[in-house]
Amino acid sequence: MSETVLHIFYLIAVSAEAMTAALAAGRRNMDWFGVAMLGCITALGGGSIRDVLLGHHPLSWVAHPSYLAIAVTAACATIVLARFMERLRGVFLVLDAIGLVVFTVIGCNVALDMGQPLAIVVVAGMITGTAGGVLRDILCTEVPLLFRRELYASVSIVTAGLYVGGLAAGLQHDLVMVCAMAVGLALRLLALRYDLHMPKFVYTKDLH
Amino acid sequence: MSETVLHIFYLIAVSAEAMTAALAAGRRNMDWFGVAMLGCITALGGGSIRDVLLGHHPLSWVAHPSYLAIAVTAACATIVLARFMERLRGVFLVLDAIGLVVFTVIGCNVALDMGQPLAIVVVAGMITGTAGGVLRDILCTEVPLLFRRELYASVSIVTAGLYVGGLAAGLQHDLVMVCAMAVGLALRLLALRYDLHMPKFVYTKDLH
Amino acid sequence: MSETVLHIFYLIAVSAEAMTAALAAGRRNMDWFGVAMLGCITALGGGSIRDVLLGHHPLSWVAHPSYLAIAVTAACATIVLARFMERLRGVFLVLDAIGLVVFTVIGCNVALDMGQPLAIVVVAGMITGTAGGVLRDILCTEVPLLFRRELYASVSIVTAGLYVGGLAAGLQHDLVMVCAMAVGLALRLLALRYDLHMPKFVYTKDLH
Repeated sequence: MSETVLHIFYLIAVSAEAMTAALAAGRRNMDWFGVAMLGCITALGGGSIRDVLLGHHPLSWVAHPSYLAIAVTAACATIVLARFMERLRGVFLVLDAIGLVVFTVIGCNVALDMGQPLAIVVVAGMITGTAGGVLRDILCTEVPLLFRRELYASVSIVTAGLYVGGLAAGLQHDLVMVCAMAVGLALRLLALRYDLHMPKFVYTKDLH
Repeated sequence: MSETVLHIFYLIAVSAEAMTAALAAGRRNMDWFGVAMLGCITALGGGSIRDVLLGHHPLSWVAHPSYLAIAVTAACATIVLARFMERLRGVFLVLDAIGLVVFTVIGCNVALDMGQPLAIVVVAGMITGTAGGVLRDILCTEVPLLFRRELYASVSIVTAGLYVGGLAAGLQHDLVMVCAMAVGLALRLLALRYDLHMPKFVYTKDLH
Repeated sequence: MSETVLHIFYLIAVSAEAMTAALAAGRRNMDWFGVAMLGCITALGGGSIRDVLLGHHPLSWVAHPSYLAIAVTAACATIVLARFMERLRGVFLVLDAIGLVVFTVIGCNVALDMGQPLAIVVVAGMITGTAGGVLRDILCTEVPLLFRRELYASVSIVTAGLYVGGLAAGLQHDLVMVCAMAVGLALRLLALRYDLHMPKFVYTKDLH
């Protein structure tokens, strides 16, 4: 049961990430093809990087090409819906936050199934949750927001850490998963609401 | 026979892509080493990304290091020949278009040989045809032209779609391959001649 | 014995690369998380790209998660130590140069153990030595320094070439390794001291 619910949330998260990517593409005046491609790369890129680094084949979208269709559809729908999306800003940020914790937990599960050490399980969760957005920003030639924005990757690490820690402590799987995701989601929404940041490191000298 | 012809076109395409990359490197004032490296990454990067994503080892240039030598030679020759190349602009754009359709068909063949689903075969063709140019643009810190330019990736998708569709329909291989490449090539040259574009998505709000 | 010494130098090199990455992150005002992540990607990214391209799994940091801890620690320590680092500029550039030749030799060894052709062994050494810095620059949205700076990748190629050539000539392993690294190190320090450059390719026309 929890598998099915997680899968539905995964598909919602893929769509939400593809839509944020489409808006970023629009800000760069990309053409429709670029919008679709950036949507796919953002929505499925985190999981792809994780799988490539862990040597986990086939990648999810290679095994299930329908995921590509979902990302393309969501990205293209955004071209039509963009005018209404500012009004839906709140809904959107919540969907994005759900995507972050769902991707994180799914990434942890892939590494757990491979029998990776626990530190790598947490890293796999974090890569899955955040690397798609990093690819999006690189393709838009921006310094990745991830490295500069309110708690985002930290939320992914906390979620992964609670999930892995809870399982290692022998607690019941579904309970641990729901709690880890709930804490991560709450932390992310609090960070958005109160504009919480990690401290910044500002360095102005040039070593080279 | 068609194998050999395709292979010769492949080597021409590798050279042509390395040469366009060398010109891009020159516009960024890269040193000779950067020119050679950007040439290799552009000419062989699309196939490498395809192979890494599909888990297809060894990569072509690992199995055939001579491909690296061809790309390096073509890129370095460009340093000398650049002054004559503007006059050869037309030749060059045709070679680049040939490269696009040849890379696409070769990428499809790799995925077909692996027994991938047809949707993935088309995607593999498109990645092979276009991802090298995306890497080139990222390394030059430009928003990838692919996402903004006249029909380019679309040409790759059409070529791959016709090729895969024709084979799936049971038509004779060489005929399908030549037709798919001819249509793709014609479409690309028409796009260049008449400046055909995909419509753009322009979005000016900031969601974050 | 030489294995152990090389491993110690490897850990020093990982730390040094993570520290240069942290300074680059500080120049972009990244937050503490971004500093840690850029440190890991820079210090371990070259080896990871090599392993992914060669299909060599598990990656070093997947097999030894402690490498991630070392990179994170070195990057975060830099936040505190940055104010003293300008004074240590010389020490730092030497550590970076040591890292370059150590990474190169280790990368060659991985490819040699896989039985790759000698040209690929040299390429594997060069990727290991230089690709981390390219990733750092892309994530900071700068045209990679590697493509524009004094002898750096060239040093890696010379080191790898001497190492592979010496082994192919049947010379004693430790001797070859020390000589290759010493020549590479000397070349790099001379390049820094006398500001040696590869010639640049400057091209101002726009082909597109």
